[in-house]
Amino acid sequence: MSLARAEIAQQPDVVARLLERERSTLRALAAELRRRRPRYAVIAARGSSDNAARYAQHVLGRILRLPVVLATPSLHTLYDAPPRFIDAIVIGVSQSGASPDVVSVVAEGARQGALTAAITNDPSSPLAAAAAHVVDLGAGEERSVAATKTYTASLAAIAALAAEGDPGLAAEVERLPGALAAQLALTGAAGAAVDAAAGWERLTVVGRGAHYATAFEAALKVRELAGIVAEAFSPADLLHGPIATAGPAQPLLAIAPAGPTEGSMRELVAAARERGAHVAAIGHDPALGDPFMELVDVPEWLGPAVAIVPAQLLAVGLAERRGVDVDAPFGLSKITLTR
Amino acid sequence: MSLARAEIAQQPDVVARLLERERSTLRALAAELRRRRPRYAVIAARGSSDNAARYAQHVLGRILRLPVVLATPSLHTLYDAPPRFIDAIVIGVSQSGASPDVVSVVAEGARQGALTAAITNDPSSPLAAAAAHVVDLGAGEERSVAATKTYTASLAAIAALAAEGDPGLAAEVERLPGALAAQLALTGAAGAAVDAAAGWERLTVVGRGAHYATAFEAALKVRELAGIVAEAFSPADLLHGPIATAGPAQPLLAIAPAGPTEGSMRELVAAARERGAHVAAIGHDPALGDPFMELVDVPEWLGPAVAIVPAQLLAVGLAERRGVDVDAPFGLSKITLTR
Repeated sequence: MSLARAEIAQQPDVVARLLERERSTLRALAAELRRRRPRYAVIAARGSSDNAARYAQHVLGRILRLPVVLATPSLHTLYDAPPRFIDAIVIGVSQSGASPDVVSVVAEGARQGALTAAITNDPSSPLAAAAAHVVDLGAGEERSVAATKTYTASLAAIAALAAEGDPGLAAEVERLPGALAAQLALTGAAGAAVDAAAGWERLTVVGRGAHYATAFEAALKVRELAGIVAEAFSPADLLHGPIATAGPAQPLLAIAPAGPTEGSMRELVAAARERGAHVAAIGHDPALGDPFMELVDVPEWLGPAVAIVPAQLLAVGLAERRGVDVDAPFGLSKITLTR
Repeated sequence: MSLARAEIAQQPDVVARLLERERSTLRALAAELRRRRPRYAVIAARGSSDNAARYAQHVLGRILRLPVVLATPSLHTLYDAPPRFIDAIVIGVSQSGASPDVVSVVAEGARQGALTAAITNDPSSPLAAAAAHVVDLGAGEERSVAATKTYTASLAAIAALAAEGDPGLAAEVERLPGALAAQLALTGAAGAAVDAAAGWERLTVVGRGAHYATAFEAALKVRELAGIVAEAFSPADLLHGPIATAGPAQPLLAIAPAGPTEGSMRELVAAARERGAHVAAIGHDPALGDPFMELVDVPEWLGPAVAIVPAQLLAVGLAERRGVDVDAPFGLSKITLTR
C-alpha cells in the first residue's frame, strides 16, 4: 500500500488523538479569545493549510462571528510593510511549521502584541516557537508529499476551537472520528468513480460556504496526485466569467451536500450541463452528478472534514491508474520554503 | 471596432475624469478613516471587482497598514451568520452595484454601525444606496461583457484613496492617465504576442504582491474573452502543488515587473522552464518571457493599473483570432445576480 493510502486510512485515529490530546490547549486558547475579544483573525498558510484557512474563515465567522483576514505574506517578506494587527488574533497553519512566510506573519503578530497561535504537526518548528499557543496536530510523520491526514487534523483543530464552550457543538466534534471511519468505509476504493473519471484531462471543482475549502483542497489533490489541471471556484465566481470555458472538454466536480448551499449548487450544475459539461458530484443526492460519491451524514458545518475523503481517494485512484508515483508525484517536494 | 477595444482605449480618459470628479468624495472618506481609525477593512466584490479587491488588499495594507478581509457573502446570504464588524470599514466594489451578495455585506456593515463605502459605476444602484460614502467610477456605460475600463477605474479609485493625505503618492496617482496612454501606445495591437500565443489552449498566470491582482484579472480576461482555460496563482501557491501540471502543454504568463517581486518571479520562471513550460511575460526584462510585453515605467505600487492593459489587448486579440464575439463571448451576461 502507498504511504498516501495508509495516511488517508489513519485519519479517524489521527483526529481522535488530536481531540483528546489537545483539549487543554484549545480550551486555553478559547479562554484567551473570550478574555481579549479580538476584533478579527489573521491566518497565514500555504497549500493545503491555506485550504484549512479557508475553512477557518467560514467556521470562525459563522460560529465565533469573527471576520478572518487571509494574510498577504509578501507585505511582510518583500515590501517591509506589515499591516497593523491591533485587537487581532494571528494564526499560522503549517504542517511542517517551516515556511518562512507563514512564520514571518505570526512573528510580526507577536512583535505587535497580538494574540498568536500555531497549528502545526511539528511543535519544535520555527512556527511553534513564534506563537504563544501551539496546537500540535500530532498526526505522526506525514511521509506522502500530498497532505491528507494533516489537512483533516487541521480542520478538526479549527472546528474544536470554534466549538469550545458550546457543549452541543463540542459533542458534534467528538463524533468526527466515527464519521471519518464511516466515510472511509462508505467510499471504499472509489472504484466506480475512478473508472468514470479515468479520461479526465482537466477539471473544475465547485463548492460554496463551508465547502469552498473542500473545492480548493479537492482540486489541489487531483492536481498534485493525478496531474489533472484542476481548479476551484465558488458558483458565484464561476458564473462571473470563468464559466466561459465550461463544456464537454471541461468536466465539473460539484461539492454539493444537503444544506444551505444546495440550492445554488443545483443552479450551477444546471448551468454547467446546459453548456454540455459532464458533472460529477460529492454529496447526498445522486441526481446531482455521475459519478456520484455519497457523503455520510454529519452536521453541515463539519462536512468539509469528511467530504474531502472521497476526493482524496478519487485523486489517489486516478494517480495509480495513470502510473504516477503517488507518494512523490511530479517531482514535488514536501516542504516548500517560500518567502 | 469592437466595444471591448473602444472601452480599453477609453481608459486614460476614464481614469483622468475619475480622479478629477471624485477628489472631494475620496478626501471625505479618507478624513473619516483618520477620524474613526478602523482596525481592518472588509471588501465584498465579485469577478473583476474581486480582483480590484485583491489590489486593495495589497495597497491598503502597504500604505494605510490596514489588514483587509475579503468578505464571505454566503455567511450573510445563506447561513444568516454575518460576522461582527466592530471597528471596521466595509467596502463594496461592483460595476453594476446590483449584486445582491455584495449589497448584503455592505448593508450589514451599515446595520452594525461600521463605516461603509461603495465603489461603483452606478451611483443610483442598490450598493450605492446601502453605503455612506459612494465613489462613482463615472466610466460611462460599459457595454462589453468583459470589464476593462471599470477595472482600471476601480484600481485608480483605490490607489487615490490610499494616497490621500500624502502629496508624494497623490502626485504619482495624478500621473496615472498619462501612464495608461503611454502603455496603450507601447503595446499597440499586441500583434506579435497574439501570434505567439495563438495556439494556447490553457494558461497559468503568475503574479505576486501588487501583481497578484494582475495575475487573476489577466487570467479572467483571457478566459472569458478567448475561451482559454486560464488560472492564476502566486509563485508560492503554485510551488505548493499546482506546479505538478506545468509542462509543454501548459504555458505560463509571468507578471514580472522590476521591483520587490522580481526575484521570486525569476525563480518561478526558472522552475517552470525546467519542467518544459513555455513562459510568456509582462514586465521590464525581455529575458523573462517570449512573447514579452513591455511595461512603461510607473511607481511599482501603481503598476497593476497599467500592467493589465497588455493582458486586455492580448485577450481581445486572441478572441478575435478565434472568431469569438468579443463583446458578448460564450453566452456570458454582464450582470450576474448571485446571492
